[in-house]
Amino acid sequence: MAGPDEARTRYAAVLRPGPRGTERVPLRAALGRVMAEDAVASTDLPPFDRSTMDGWAVRASDLAAAAPGRPVFLRPSGEVHMGVAADVPVPPCGAVRISTGGMLPVGADAVVMQEQATVEAEGLLVSRPVIAGENVVARGADIRAGELVLRRGWRLRPPDLGLLAGQGLESVLVFLPPRVAILATGDELVPAGAPLTPGRVRDMNTVALAGAVDAAGGVPTICGIVGDDRPAILAALRSALAGHDMLLVSGGSSVGEHDLAMEAIAALGPPGIVVHGIAVRPGKPTVLAAAGTVPVIGLPGNPVSALVIFDLFARPVLEAMLGLDPGSRPWGLVRARLFEALPSARVREDHRRVRLEQRPGGIWAVPLPAGSQILTSMVRADGIVVVPPGEQGLGEGEEVEVRLLT
Amino acid sequence: MAGPDEARTRYAAVLRPGPRGTERVPLRAALGRVMAEDAVASTDLPPFDRSTMDGWAVRASDLAAAAPGRPVFLRPSGEVHMGVAADVPVPPCGAVRISTGGMLPVGADAVVMQEQATVEAEGLLVSRPVIAGENVVARGADIRAGELVLRRGWRLRPPDLGLLAGQGLESVLVFLPPRVAILATGDELVPAGAPLTPGRVRDMNTVALAGAVDAAGGVPTICGIVGDDRPAILAALRSALAGHDMLLVSGGSSVGEHDLAMEAIAALGPPGIVVHGIAVRPGKPTVLAAAGTVPVIGLPGNPVSALVIFDLFARPVLEAMLGLDPGSRPWGLVRARLFEALPSARVREDHRRVRLEQRPGGIWAVPLPAGSQILTSMVRADGIVVVPPGEQGLGEGEEVEVRLLT
Repeated sequence: MAGPDEARTRYAAVLRPGPRGTERVPLRAALGRVMAEDAVASTDLPPFDRSTMDGWAVRASDLAAAAPGRPVFLRPSGEVHMGVAADVPVPPCGAVRISTGGMLPVGADAVVMQEQATVEAEGLLVSRPVIAGENVVARGADIRAGELVLRRGWRLRPPDLGLLAGQGLESVLVFLPPRVAILATGDELVPAGAPLTPGRVRDMNTVALAGAVDAAGGVPTICGIVGDDRPAILAALRSALAGHDMLLVSGGSSVGEHDLAMEAIAALGPPGIVVHGIAVRPGKPTVLAAAGTVPVIGLPGNPVSALVIFDLFARPVLEAMLGLDPGSRPWGLVRARLFEALPSARVREDHRRVRLEQRPGGIWAVPLPAGSQILTSMVRADGIVVVPPGEQGLGEGEEVEVRLLT
Repeated sequence: MAGPDEARTRYAAVLRPGPRGTERVPLRAALGRVMAEDAVASTDLPPFDRSTMDGWAVRASDLAAAAPGRPVFLRPSGEVHMGVAADVPVPPCGAVRISTGGMLPVGADAVVMQEQATVEAEGLLVSRPVIAGENVVARGADIRAGELVLRRGWRLRPPDLGLLAGQGLESVLVFLPPRVAILATGDELVPAGAPLTPGRVRDMNTVALAGAVDAAGGVPTICGIVGDDRPAILAALRSALAGHDMLLVSGGSSVGEHDLAMEAIAALGPPGIVVHGIAVRPGKPTVLAAAGTVPVIGLPGNPVSALVIFDLFARPVLEAMLGLDPGSRPWGLVRARLFEALPSARVREDHRRVRLEQRPGGIWAVPLPAGSQILTSMVRADGIVVVPPGEQGLGEGEEVEVRLLT
């Protein structure tokens, strides 16, 4: 049975997932989307030397001798108005009034803060030297024309939108989000709104997985519930293949000797099933498959398993289809001390849900119930601690890394 | 000048922000929304004792003497079908075929895994005892009827949607998101699509702030750019007050002796300006105000300052208006070692942008340029390190907490 890393590697080698196309969207609708082109600066940012203070644009060399008790007098002449070219040059021993963000006039190379100058009859009195560049942000200090602003594969955050707007862009080319079909299988399942008869349970997976797809940047379609019937599952999968870029099938429960969902997935055509069974807990019976270029993932029926397996195996595929550069977001880890020992799951890598608590000694990771049937263990969780396979497990008080759930 | 905590406290005392109403949304549209009611379980979850394995439902007491080489024979009788009541009781020394997720029949109290039983002519041969409850998840083990499932003020994540669906809910009552108007002021500003003439810069704040509002769960409206003209700013603010629950005004740049945006905010009426000037860097000239019950926040014109101040002062207000329970998400912190010393900003709490890097010795926080004019310092940042006020600063190699930017 393959470990999680090996399973991912084998799957990626067969699947080679990638984006299905691009679209241009307005910047204000681009939050969270993934850049489909490198953005190269067309202009310097800022586009001219700007004052960072309210004060006076000056020549620094004029003030070299200024000191408390030995002020230098400058000759004020005019003002830089905001939003127009600074057309009043600063002559030697001159000073021009300037506001924060104003364009430094020709001749000036520094700004004296208004608190450090006084207007008197003889002129502007300054009692402190400035150095060239003081209180000025130079043209191009943020970005120079020709520089790479944001790279293809970058997921757009709020400041990125500002930076693109600063380059005069009103829209941006992004990758199309993958359309993900979600099916649940099982004779025991009823939809949330229907009455619950004995022996039946409510479908919790489709809406939870739709949320997970949505949060990861995909566009989910809930295709509903199919009974434990191989032709019905196969027909539902075939129908979902049209118009979707990825298929998630939860609850490939084995009935008798037959794993119906797995058989239906295999019948979709080549390359078929790449991995069946992974040394991970929860989620051992996971199926990683493909029909042509469309990834088809068989997730366990238990909602905890389905969500953990989504994170481990479906999300990376979805992110590759989003065009997301791997390593764009590697920091969702918190170090914490384990509140109680976690035994290992022997040959399987165990993904245990934990609550984080601030207690004496720092942040503690408090394990939640292990059972993959216990959805509250996911709902109450702040993150996941991985217990490696082997005999050892993790000890009480041990420092562990917690992968935060978002 | 108030420190950040004092400013927040004073503002909250005057403003008392809260949600403006509720709406009912389908579960599949509820991701990220905030619960407006406690969700109390109406049914046990699972609703009956379920098998966690494919195998045989048995009475544990029948197998007490079973051991390798000393098997116990049970009498198989029928099967539990998925999705219907288990109507085949298990008599003493009986066994009923059951699948994962099947309903435990009357009489049975444990499940023998199919790998640990063999069907022979004499009956079902079992060579290992089971304990009562083995391979069974008991009715109500996840949630009991009457238990609090999710509380008012909770932001819905994917597993939460599953849990609500498991209670038969198709929709959920959530708080209305605050509608946030965003204005930028300044004669120097041009919109992204317009040509850039000398002395002018492009508006980067409105789209970046709209992204920040969106990411925080609000509904942004970009109201555009207003020149440095008090009546025009006042008119734009008054117009934005209609139909919005919160106003963000960026770039209250002082022109001459007048801070026009601040004057316009003050003229909106009581309670008016609560805090003007905060001992924080960037963002000292921040204005925290209210017109009636509507928060009005004057943000600095520099995009870095605007985004940092949004996070520190606007986001908490927005989250209170979202109905979000404070402390719902306290874990976005990473410990890292500081790659180079950060001097303090004396009397101001300094919020420095850092990149995180995995290097020898763990995770390092690499400071980015300090200037609040440098938007790339925000774009390249993984998080923020707070340098406390005072003389000391933070030393090279010191362990610091990094607040992750999302």
